[in-house]
Amino acid sequence: MGKITPRSEDFSQWYLDVLREADMFDYGPVGGTIIAKPYGWTLYENMKDALDKRFKDTGHVNAQFPMFIPQSFLRKEASHVEGFSPELAVVTIGGGKELEEPIVVRPTSETIIGDAYSRWIKSYRDLPVLINLWNSVVRWEKRTKPFLRTMEFYWQEGHTAHATHEEAWEEVIRMLNVYHTHGVEDCAMPSIRGRKSKNERFAGAINTTSIEAMMGDKKALQAGTSHDLGQNFAKAFDIKYLDRDNTEKYCWTTSWGMSWRFLGGMVMVHGDDQGLRLPPKVAPIQVVIVPIFKNDTEKSVVLPVADRIFAQIKASGIRVKFDDREETPGFKFNDWEMRGVPVRVEIGPKDVDKNSVALARRDRPGKAGKSFVSQDGLVEAIRALMEEIHASLHTQAEAHLMGNIREANTYAEMKEAVQDGWALVPLLDDPAVDAKLKEELQVTNRNFPLEQAPGEWKCVITGETVHERALVGKSY
Amino acid sequence: MGKITPRSEDFSQWYLDVLREADMFDYGPVGGTIIAKPYGWTLYENMKDALDKRFKDTGHVNAQFPMFIPQSFLRKEASHVEGFSPELAVVTIGGGKELEEPIVVRPTSETIIGDAYSRWIKSYRDLPVLINLWNSVVRWEKRTKPFLRTMEFYWQEGHTAHATHEEAWEEVIRMLNVYHTHGVEDCAMPSIRGRKSKNERFAGAINTTSIEAMMGDKKALQAGTSHDLGQNFAKAFDIKYLDRDNTEKYCWTTSWGMSWRFLGGMVMVHGDDQGLRLPPKVAPIQVVIVPIFKNDTEKSVVLPVADRIFAQIKASGIRVKFDDREETPGFKFNDWEMRGVPVRVEIGPKDVDKNSVALARRDRPGKAGKSFVSQDGLVEAIRALMEEIHASLHTQAEAHLMGNIREANTYAEMKEAVQDGWALVPLLDDPAVDAKLKEELQVTNRNFPLEQAPGEWKCVITGETVHERALVGKSY
Repeated sequence: MGKITPRSEDFSQWYLDVLREADMFDYGPVGGTIIAKPYGWTLYENMKDALDKRFKDTGHVNAQFPMFIPQSFLRKEASHVEGFSPELAVVTIGGGKELEEPIVVRPTSETIIGDAYSRWIKSYRDLPVLINLWNSVVRWEKRTKPFLRTMEFYWQEGHTAHATHEEAWEEVIRMLNVYHTHGVEDCAMPSIRGRKSKNERFAGAINTTSIEAMMGDKKALQAGTSHDLGQNFAKAFDIKYLDRDNTEKYCWTTSWGMSWRFLGGMVMVHGDDQGLRLPPKVAPIQVVIVPIFKNDTEKSVVLPVADRIFAQIKASGIRVKFDDREETPGFKFNDWEMRGVPVRVEIGPKDVDKNSVALARRDRPGKAGKSFVSQDGLVEAIRALMEEIHASLHTQAEAHLMGNIREANTYAEMKEAVQDGWALVPLLDDPAVDAKLKEELQVTNRNFPLEQAPGEWKCVITGETVHERALVGKSY
Repeated sequence: MGKITPRSEDFSQWYLDVLREADMFDYGPVGGTIIAKPYGWTLYENMKDALDKRFKDTGHVNAQFPMFIPQSFLRKEASHVEGFSPELAVVTIGGGKELEEPIVVRPTSETIIGDAYSRWIKSYRDLPVLINLWNSVVRWEKRTKPFLRTMEFYWQEGHTAHATHEEAWEEVIRMLNVYHTHGVEDCAMPSIRGRKSKNERFAGAINTTSIEAMMGDKKALQAGTSHDLGQNFAKAFDIKYLDRDNTEKYCWTTSWGMSWRFLGGMVMVHGDDQGLRLPPKVAPIQVVIVPIFKNDTEKSVVLPVADRIFAQIKASGIRVKFDDREETPGFKFNDWEMRGVPVRVEIGPKDVDKNSVALARRDRPGKAGKSFVSQDGLVEAIRALMEEIHASLHTQAEAHLMGNIREANTYAEMKEAVQDGWALVPLLDDPAVDAKLKEELQVTNRNFPLEQAPGEWKCVITGETVHERALVGKSY
């Protein structure tokens, strides 16, 4: 195994070291691309399955759209093309011939979806349309930070159409809440829901909301966004419906997306200097069994019992691995700790005698994390322990998030706060204010939290009266 | 609802009509691409989940590779580049700039995988590597036949590396069998496993195997392929391992793929003039409930019972839909028959009185397919009926396949047989023979079945002695 740089020394290098040592990724041959290796991809698949279930529970269905979009489609929505043009990958040759019209690889699918919805939606009876896509998109980018910044990234994009603005806005918030709940309940990862500043809106949206999570280095990660597209795309693509009153109206549309960036965020929220710490609900391996013996006699005593326990746990549906490699237990402990497996089952000759096993939990190092339980009822004990681990990871992350947000009512207080966390600060929603934050303090307005105490303050930049505060901090 | 052309009149048009009326697809804006609409995509997802489980049960893991491959990679394996060059989509502009080296959108991933495996595999301990990818690939093609021939298509591609040729060949056959079993057990779709002729091998393979299914019009569909790549890619990409004897050796690799073409095949195997007939295991909706009433009094009697039955079936995990639209029962019957829902539950006032429901099975039209069962134990009755429907669809498809293969020992007999089915015929494995079949009879050598009686025959084209026979027929 290679060395993992301590988090306190160099957080970025720690992140790369952990992903490499846990065998999560490799770089692709085209700059900006990565390969998700089986351990990394399985983690993403588990997160995907959990999120997909939440989409279906809220009435959404999956579909699939082509990756190729005619370049002309992007021009139909003015701010959309402006936002995405610099980032496009363009196919100009197909089947050995120069193309008459260049094709772009989707950077996002609002345009091709808008075109389809204009054909599919005729009447109020067809609404709402609630479709989600799981796919990858391409935004040109040569700097690579695995899962956090990649030219091609995997994500889901939801695209819905509604009869009224009110319904569309409800959907925007519903999906923001789905992201938030997925974070908390599946990934033990808390976040703050809020409205993005005008400056940070999605290209073509009239309003963008986000969840912002705090990483181990106290930087913010925008972990999911949900957009109110108003009637911008409906007008650009002619998405109209015949209403009950027999008049034609434009639809109101939304889009929302969460990418494999969330996986990177989860690593940066929970990981420690020993490696990953994975929330049990999405961990590729939830339990690893390490048999312990000093000689062949002990081996012959331990292995049959370990085998039986493995079969028992596997039959229960828990994702379990039996580590029968010819390495020392110490090597195996380190290896699985680095890979973040939540629960380790150790079984040696003494355990066999006592009809017990040792359980070690990844979220608590050393003796404090060890318990000895009976082999009877082991599956139930493991299930209960996994619930505890989830709760404990969430509690730690929540304490880290809430403990590093400080209220600031002056520029000086904000400047002080963002040196080591986030500031909750009165700010005007004005691109000039955002620009000043970036220029002077290298921080950004993360969002205006949806849940905040009402009040009246002076913007710490312009001095104007404002009625809400923003979260400000360094970010990925 | 639109009209469905009878199968006997124009099978191709029938196929398009069914897909359109069942709301499975739409055309994409770039010629050759399609949109998989929710009903079509959900069907594909169900097939994918069933197949993925079989991959995992045989020890495979999923990963994800970039869609972008440097053009130079394809040139490393001579026959591979020759096979795929005419079909490539090439990205020449990225982030607003002309690229120094053009990038291709993957037509398949052997090359980028070969490059990665050369880094990942060091020792015999690293073998076998058993990785599968679910993704889409692009092969330039402007003629569109939804799911059967599309420029971008969804599929899975497995890529494995082994220490010996024997192990690699075992894997090739193992995965061919997985495809065959998936067809039979999940999709009620029988097929013939066999070895492709030299002429029909995958570009870069030393041997290609396939499963061939017979469509409703008696044409063949190559429904899945599994390739023995020998050491061709290992040598081109330098995939070597240090063996137990301390010498470096090249790996033996395989690849195998099945695409959404299989979905198209399933439609063409089971569908009838009323529309789709979907095998219960993969059907997006397995059971539809249609309440029947003539007036509000009857409605108030029927709906609460129908609701209760719906909740009961849903709780059991069966994919059930309650059709509460304001349409006539007759309209609903036609609609769900067209969409191929395997089981329809009808409930009217008389059924409420008798504590029964009517079950109609999609695979048997009219009265023959109707039964009346008690509301008690309904879930078990439906489960048993779905098993029966699966078996009956498979039996019909198997009879169609086996009943339309005729042995032929002369050119004249072969010519006669392929007018209305397939011929099993002695053929030399020689590209010149394949070319002659195509030119003279517009048929192809589908494969040399793996299971066939040993014997000695004369090739019906060249007269040379051969020891196996081939399946010959028209194909998609």
